Amino acid sequence: MVNGLIVKSLGIDTYRENIIFMNAECRICKSEGFSALTRVLVEFKNKRIIATLNVVNSELLELDEAGLSIEAMKRLGVNGGETIHVFHLKPIESLSKVRSKMYGNELKDSDFSEIIADVVAGQYSNIELAAFISACSGDNLTITEIIGLTRAMVENSEKMKWSREMVLDKHCVGGLPGNRTTPIVVSIAAAAGLTIPKTSSRAITSPAGTADVMATLTTVNLTAEQMKETVESEGGCLVWGAGVKLSPADDILISVERALDVDSEGQMIASVMSKKIAAGSTHVVIEIPVGPTAKVRSMEAALKLKYYFKAVAAAFDIFIEIVISDGSQPVGIGIGPVLEAIDIISILQNEIHAPQDLKKHAIEIAGLLLEMSGKYSPGTGQEVALEILQSGEAYKKFVAICKKQGGFRELHLAPFRHDILSTHSGIITAVDCRKISRIAKLAGAPRSPGAGIRFYANIGKQIQTGDVLYSVYSDSQGEMEYVKEYLGSINGVITME
Amino acid sequence: MVNGLIVKSLGIDTYRENIIFMNAECRICKSEGFSALTRVLVEFKNKRIIATLNVVNSELLELDEAGLSIEAMKRLGVNGGETIHVFHLKPIESLSKVRSKMYGNELKDSDFSEIIADVVAGQYSNIELAAFISACSGDNLTITEIIGLTRAMVENSEKMKWSREMVLDKHCVGGLPGNRTTPIVVSIAAAAGLTIPKTSSRAITSPAGTADVMATLTTVNLTAEQMKETVESEGGCLVWGAGVKLSPADDILISVERALDVDSEGQMIASVMSKKIAAGSTHVVIEIPVGPTAKVRSMEAALKLKYYFKAVAAAFDIFIEIVISDGSQPVGIGIGPVLEAIDIISILQNEIHAPQDLKKHAIEIAGLLLEMSGKYSPGTGQEVALEILQSGEAYKKFVAICKKQGGFRELHLAPFRHDILSTHSGIITAVDCRKISRIAKLAGAPRSPGAGIRFYANIGKQIQTGDVLYSVYSDSQGEMEYVKEYLGSINGVITME
Repeated sequence: MVNGLIVKSLGIDTYRENIIFMNAECRICKSEGFSALTRVLVEFKNKRIIATLNVVNSELLELDEAGLSIEAMKRLGVNGGETIHVFHLKPIESLSKVRSKMYGNELKDSDFSEIIADVVAGQYSNIELAAFISACSGDNLTITEIIGLTRAMVENSEKMKWSREMVLDKHCVGGLPGNRTTPIVVSIAAAAGLTIPKTSSRAITSPAGTADVMATLTTVNLTAEQMKETVESEGGCLVWGAGVKLSPADDILISVERALDVDSEGQMIASVMSKKIAAGSTHVVIEIPVGPTAKVRSMEAALKLKYYFKAVAAAFDIFIEIVISDGSQPVGIGIGPVLEAIDIISILQNEIHAPQDLKKHAIEIAGLLLEMSGKYSPGTGQEVALEILQSGEAYKKFVAICKKQGGFRELHLAPFRHDILSTHSGIITAVDCRKISRIAKLAGAPRSPGAGIRFYANIGKQIQTGDVLYSVYSDSQGEMEYVKEYLGSINGVITME
Repeated sequence: MVNGLIVKSLGIDTYRENIIFMNAECRICKSEGFSALTRVLVEFKNKRIIATLNVVNSELLELDEAGLSIEAMKRLGVNGGETIHVFHLKPIESLSKVRSKMYGNELKDSDFSEIIADVVAGQYSNIELAAFISACSGDNLTITEIIGLTRAMVENSEKMKWSREMVLDKHCVGGLPGNRTTPIVVSIAAAAGLTIPKTSSRAITSPAGTADVMATLTTVNLTAEQMKETVESEGGCLVWGAGVKLSPADDILISVERALDVDSEGQMIASVMSKKIAAGSTHVVIEIPVGPTAKVRSMEAALKLKYYFKAVAAAFDIFIEIVISDGSQPVGIGIGPVLEAIDIISILQNEIHAPQDLKKHAIEIAGLLLEMSGKYSPGTGQEVALEILQSGEAYKKFVAICKKQGGFRELHLAPFRHDILSTHSGIITAVDCRKISRIAKLAGAPRSPGAGIRFYANIGKQIQTGDVLYSVYSDSQGEMEYVKEYLGSINGVITME
């Protein structure tokens, strides 16, 4: 065929965006009029991907060769040496819907279906994904649109079916460093004989997501089949949502949201609820922490989110309860995957020095789930939850879940530590959660699982000059230097009076 | 130094976005915790650029080598063999302003200044540019913000100074294929002894911009100095704005707007007006064609644009006149750079078959400029303009401008032609300008200057079965096949009764 090129493996990792490298002088570039950044269709046997063209003006590629990024080679199922074909790309029709949204028009259910189907099929470039995310950011989606986006995400996911009628779930809207209740809540609920097939995401803009934390302790990248086995056997699981493809669209959108360091309200609700629906959940608790530096900053904003969550849940026949919690400071001691895992283990093991704030928080949510199940009468849920925790049943269940998922691993803290000492004495009155998160991220979390912060400066605590306010952990000296530079350039991480 | 890497030239063209390629196993990737798509700071001597990291898992690069995209090598001033240094990137503060805009907040003048300065300095990735463009798209900028964005673009441009007090300019908001009045208007105004240092842009989403058309006839990529010389000598010029850096921000934003196939109203006004202000213009005519398939579709939208243009002009003390014109069908015969140049020459040479609609249009705008100048009394401008055209003075001026800019070149039409014949007879009642534009673009315009359309199907014309409605020209058979496929998939390019 006239437009055949031989694949050469260049080993270049461009992350999610497919890139094809072609010689500027090659017959196809010339005859088809392709130039740098042209989006093209690449075909191998019955597989097709869309890729962005990078033109090569050197001997890196022969005239009849094409390089593909690592991810593109995987998607196309080639290793090098195969003959691929490259074609002009037809205009992607759903992009006209994205433009329409950019111009402020309301999208229909079918518009979202088209867009999300194309996103999942890898048809969107990073630039196009960024435009869609921006157009849907802030306050730009109506509740009808959020429901439409949720439905589109559910359509493009692999739905899970359970033999039990009642399937529990919980989710925290996040923004609060260290607030890692999920592993404790799941262990308690499963130990109480309930079904809670929990899937979590990795961090978007925070130093750790539940999936990042669980990945330090066990395997989280389970297939739907493996997840099912775990839940059948233990009543619960703690896996990474992307692995079971509960919302493949979400996984793609999140990679660009992370690059933009932005969370979109409507997309967040659609992302959370689509995963709950695809996971077959029937009863869900959503926690919304509110604080001046948390993701949700005012009670008004929290109540609006509550209304949206309730409306979406109603549209899909899901029982939902919303807990609005105090989000004025970090929860627990550790911030970062391994450091948060250490907190969880210490609470599950009923250690004396375990962080009581995180424990109280987890008991509250577990109690609510127990009551929602109908198995325990209103007002008794927390008491039962605490009993299950203190008896060691929750820890036993947690270890059983981890072992079933692939083993219970040892934790490794990052080797470099830097203590931040107080330069004066006083009482702590405020903590900037955003700055704390940024410090943990600069230290390497969640990419370096052992990196992060140990936080000792809770509001109301009496501090003496020289006391350690928090310790930063990193995998490399370079990252620690960067943290120190950042610390030198900012004020107001911790306020004292 | 510990973080030094030796530059290896890979010859990879990634267009505007700087890419650095590093071996996954290299010391710096590991010690600094860099991974795919990390944004890093690259330094060579006293030059610094921000680049996106592509990790290489192959023998393409040694552990102590780094590859850079072609544009990045140019910007850093390296050819290969030099030692560069790679650092962590500090957060780009102005991105917080972009996020604020995404969340629906109004930006201040200083916010736009920070953003545009960073854009011009190459600090934004394509994803970040796409987010900024989306956040400012549609109706999202207030008039105060448009003025702020205009001011920021002017600040970041090279301003031109003229020895004359009155400096004319004109601009068409576009959206109408073939509506290439500028070269005719400039020739008439300059022949009348007025000063009109015209800079134009290349196409954003259309098959040709004035700079694309002029590039087929002469050199348009002039420096500010060369442009000045041309204007001093001839009274006018027809150059590419990006060459004289009148709005370097605009040039960067447009590359992403083109990829998104989107024009943003506020950005468009800021882009147009910032270039007029930087060019030192004092009197400006803006044309806004209105039609059902033009860029501006309703009189209401045109009047809003008129109000915005007038408000921005007032903020910068510019005299402005707005012409709202008929945008229901293409103007002239040719669509595409060379094909439009052919129309212009035929009008300037007073040929009998020259397109009369385009001529009439140009005379109208030229007449208005002559009157605004105060040199000709109201109501006489068009008459004088026509006289200058018919006397051959305008053509003489046009050739003189081209020669001064670098020579008057021969035109080369694309070799492949495909005639679209009418399958029935009737009277033409409507033309879809967007579809006509898309066909010309699929044929290769403006990338292939000789590609495009010759259009014969004007509204009101009586057509017989078998008449040629329009002819498509392309540089390659591949592009023509693609045009045919598109034609097979759509209806309603031309409506007959």
